[in-house]
Amino acid sequence: MPMTITEKIFAEHIGREVKPGEIIMCDVDMTIGNDITTPISIRAFEESGAKKLAKPDNFAIVLDHFIPPKDIASANQAKINRDFAYKHDLKNFFDEKDMGIEHRLLPEKGLVIPGDVIIGADSHTCTHGALGAFSTGMGSTDIAFCMITGKSWFKVPESIKVIFKGERGEHVYGKDLILELIRRIGVDGALYKALEFTGEVIENLPMDDRMSLCNMAIEAGAKNGIIAYDKITEEFLNEVKKYNPLRAEPKIHYSDPDAKYAQTIEINVSELEPLVAYPYLPSNGKPISQAVKDDIEIHQVYIGSCTNGTLSDLRIAAEILKGKRVHKKVRLIVTPATQRIYKQAEHEGIIDTLIDAGAVVANPTCGACLGGYMGILGDGERCVATTNRNFRGRMGSRNSEVYLSNSAVAAASAIAGKIADPRDI
Amino acid sequence: MPMTITEKIFAEHIGREVKPGEIIMCDVDMTIGNDITTPISIRAFEESGAKKLAKPDNFAIVLDHFIPPKDIASANQAKINRDFAYKHDLKNFFDEKDMGIEHRLLPEKGLVIPGDVIIGADSHTCTHGALGAFSTGMGSTDIAFCMITGKSWFKVPESIKVIFKGERGEHVYGKDLILELIRRIGVDGALYKALEFTGEVIENLPMDDRMSLCNMAIEAGAKNGIIAYDKITEEFLNEVKKYNPLRAEPKIHYSDPDAKYAQTIEINVSELEPLVAYPYLPSNGKPISQAVKDDIEIHQVYIGSCTNGTLSDLRIAAEILKGKRVHKKVRLIVTPATQRIYKQAEHEGIIDTLIDAGAVVANPTCGACLGGYMGILGDGERCVATTNRNFRGRMGSRNSEVYLSNSAVAAASAIAGKIADPRDI
Repeated sequence: MPMTITEKIFAEHIGREVKPGEIIMCDVDMTIGNDITTPISIRAFEESGAKKLAKPDNFAIVLDHFIPPKDIASANQAKINRDFAYKHDLKNFFDEKDMGIEHRLLPEKGLVIPGDVIIGADSHTCTHGALGAFSTGMGSTDIAFCMITGKSWFKVPESIKVIFKGERGEHVYGKDLILELIRRIGVDGALYKALEFTGEVIENLPMDDRMSLCNMAIEAGAKNGIIAYDKITEEFLNEVKKYNPLRAEPKIHYSDPDAKYAQTIEINVSELEPLVAYPYLPSNGKPISQAVKDDIEIHQVYIGSCTNGTLSDLRIAAEILKGKRVHKKVRLIVTPATQRIYKQAEHEGIIDTLIDAGAVVANPTCGACLGGYMGILGDGERCVATTNRNFRGRMGSRNSEVYLSNSAVAAASAIAGKIADPRDI
Repeated sequence: MPMTITEKIFAEHIGREVKPGEIIMCDVDMTIGNDITTPISIRAFEESGAKKLAKPDNFAIVLDHFIPPKDIASANQAKINRDFAYKHDLKNFFDEKDMGIEHRLLPEKGLVIPGDVIIGADSHTCTHGALGAFSTGMGSTDIAFCMITGKSWFKVPESIKVIFKGERGEHVYGKDLILELIRRIGVDGALYKALEFTGEVIENLPMDDRMSLCNMAIEAGAKNGIIAYDKITEEFLNEVKKYNPLRAEPKIHYSDPDAKYAQTIEINVSELEPLVAYPYLPSNGKPISQAVKDDIEIHQVYIGSCTNGTLSDLRIAAEILKGKRVHKKVRLIVTPATQRIYKQAEHEGIIDTLIDAGAVVANPTCGACLGGYMGILGDGERCVATTNRNFRGRMGSRNSEVYLSNSAVAAASAIAGKIADPRDI
C-alpha cells in the first residue's frame, strides 16, 4: 500500500502498514517536557505508583520558559523538575547549565533523529519534523503515560502535501513560507493533519528555515509538519556529530509517489514578499509593502523564540543593524535559542554588532514569546516579533499588539521605529 | 576651620564653611532615578505643576531593576519613565538600548565627577563616593523636589574615618573590607554618618573594589561612603574619557589633617580572610574557613549586582571556573553590570569560559539581587550571592537563604556545590 512519510514512520514503528484515521499504540523515541508542563507530568507519574521511567535516556526535561526563575512560583516549578531529574539521574536534563529553547536545543544535542516518533508537552514540538521525524505536542498527562510505558497512542493523521515552487526573493525565509500557508488555509486549515513540505524551494531551504516552517505547522492546526531527509538533513546531522553523538542512526523514509493526500497545495514562492501577520492571528498575514503603507509605529522588537532564534536569524539581524542604531523609542530584545548559537554569534561579532546598535541580548530562553519574561508588553504597546503567536495578550497586556515577521523585517523595523521593509534599509 | 572631605564638598557647593549637624540647601550635580522609583518622582513632579526640569542634563533615569519587562506591571512602570524621558527629551535616559545597573553605568558615562553632590532614588547611590563625590540615596519625592528646583536639603553628616592597614591576602577584595567593617560596627554602626575610607589598603585598591566598598556603606546605615581623589581615580577618569566626555571637571577635595571625626576605626587587613555574610544580615560575616567547616550546601550562585558585577569580578570568576564545571545541582547566574563590561568580558573570552563551565550569562540588570527576576529563589533554596543584602526573602522565597561573598568565593562555591574557599580550588 502506498504511504506518506508520516504513515511510514508509524508503520516502521509498529511493524505493519497503517492507514490515516487508524488509532495505534506506538513506541516513542523521545519524550520532552519543559519547566511549566513537566511538573504536571511528574505528579501524574508519581500518582500512578510508577518508580522508574520506561526509557530514562529517551526522556528530556528542558527548563526554558521561566528560567532563570523570574519569580518564586517559577523557582518552585523549576525545583519540582530539578528534584525529579536528580532522583532519576536523568541524562537529558537541561537547566541553567546548558540553556536552550527545547525545540532548538534537542536537535543540537543529537536527540532528534530522522524517522523518530517524538512527543513533547509543548505545542511547538512539531519543529522536529524538519529532520524527517514525526513530532507532535501533547498534554502533560499524555507525557506521563509515555514516561511510564514508553509508548503513546496516535490517530494516524491524513496528510496535506504542500509544494513550494519557484524561488525565494530577497528576505523571504522559511517564516514567510509558513505565514503564507497559514494565511491561505487559516489557523484550522490543517486540523489534525500532517503537513508535508515539498518542492524545489524546500530542497534548497536551510535547516534553520526548515525548523521555522515546521515549528508553525501547529498554527494551522496540524498534528505535525514534516520534511523528508535529504542532503541538508545529512549535513545538519554531520555538523551535530562534531560536538554530540547522535542518539540513534537515522531511519530514512520517503512518501511513495502514489501516496494519498487529503489535499495538495501549491504555493509559488517567486511572487512572495516578506509577510507580517497582524494581530490577533498568525493567519492575518499581509505583504510587507502593505504593512509599510499602514505606517504602524512600534515600541518593541523581539528577535528570538523556537521559531526564529537561530544563528541564521542573528546573522540576518546583524547584517541589517550593523553600523545603525535602534530607533530612540524602540527597544530591541534578542534571545538566541541556545548557548551554542549564542557563542557562535559571539565569535562572529554578531553580539557586539547587536549591542552597538542598541539591542539587549539576553540568555537563551522562551522569554517574552509566551508572556514569560524578558520583554513583556505593557498597555497599548506594539511589538514586531519573530515568534509564532500573536493572540491577544500573548506577550503581555491584553491591550498590546504583536505583529509576527521574519528577522529581517524585525531588524529593519527596530531601526525605523515602525514596521519596515528590510529591502529598503 | 578644618573640615573632612564630605564637609568640604558641601562647603564648596554653598560657598561657606559647614559643620556636621547643620541643615543646608545645596545645589545637586546629578539626580538619578530607576524604573521602579522614578514613576513616583514623576507623579510628584507633575502634581506640583512643574513643566520643566531645573537641570534636565543633570537628571538620569536608568531602567535596570525589572527590565526588559518581566511582566505587565514592570512594562507599565517602564512606560511611565519612557514617556517622561521622551517628553522632556532627556539626554541621560538609559533603557534596553544602553543597559546597565545605574551605579556602575553612570560613572562609565562620565556623569559622576569627583566633588559632585549626587542623589538617587536608590539606596546604593552611595557607590559613587568611590570617585570622591558625595552621593546618597533618597526617597522618590526628594528626587521630585530636586527635579523641580535642582536642589536638595541635607543635614551635613558627621564622619567616621576608617583606616584599612596592612595588605590584602589572596582573594580578599573590596567586598571583604566592607563586610569586615559591617561585621564590626553592625548594620546601624554608621547611622547618618559619612564613612571615609583611607589607609594604605585603599591607596592600592582598584576602582572596581572601591565602588564595592562604598556601595555597601548604606549597609552600615551610613549617609555616604567616600574615598578621596587620587591616582586611581585619575586613571579611571582618563579611561572613561576615551569613550565618553566627562560631565564636568573634577573638583578635588581632601580632608584636613586635623578634621574632626565622630570615630576612627582601624582594620588590619593582613589578618583578613574572605568573608561570607550569613543570613539574614550583611553584618553576619564569618571567615571563609568557618563557612567551609559549616558545610553549607547551595542551590544557586549569583555573580552580579551594583556591588560585584564588574569586569574584575568576571575575571576573578572566569579564572576559577576555567576548565571546570558548575556542580550538577547548582545553577550559576552571571549578570555583568553594564554592556561595556559585558562586551569587554566577551572580548577577553570570559563569557565563553563562563558558559563552558555551565553558567548562564544574562544581560546587565539588577536582576535577582532585589528579588526582581533572573534567578529568584524558591522555598528552601540557598544562594551564594555577590550582592549587598541577605535579608529574609530578599532574593525570593521567605524560606530561602542568601550568603553574601566576593566573586571568588561565589565561583569556588558554584564548583563545589557548597560554600568553598577559592584558595582551595
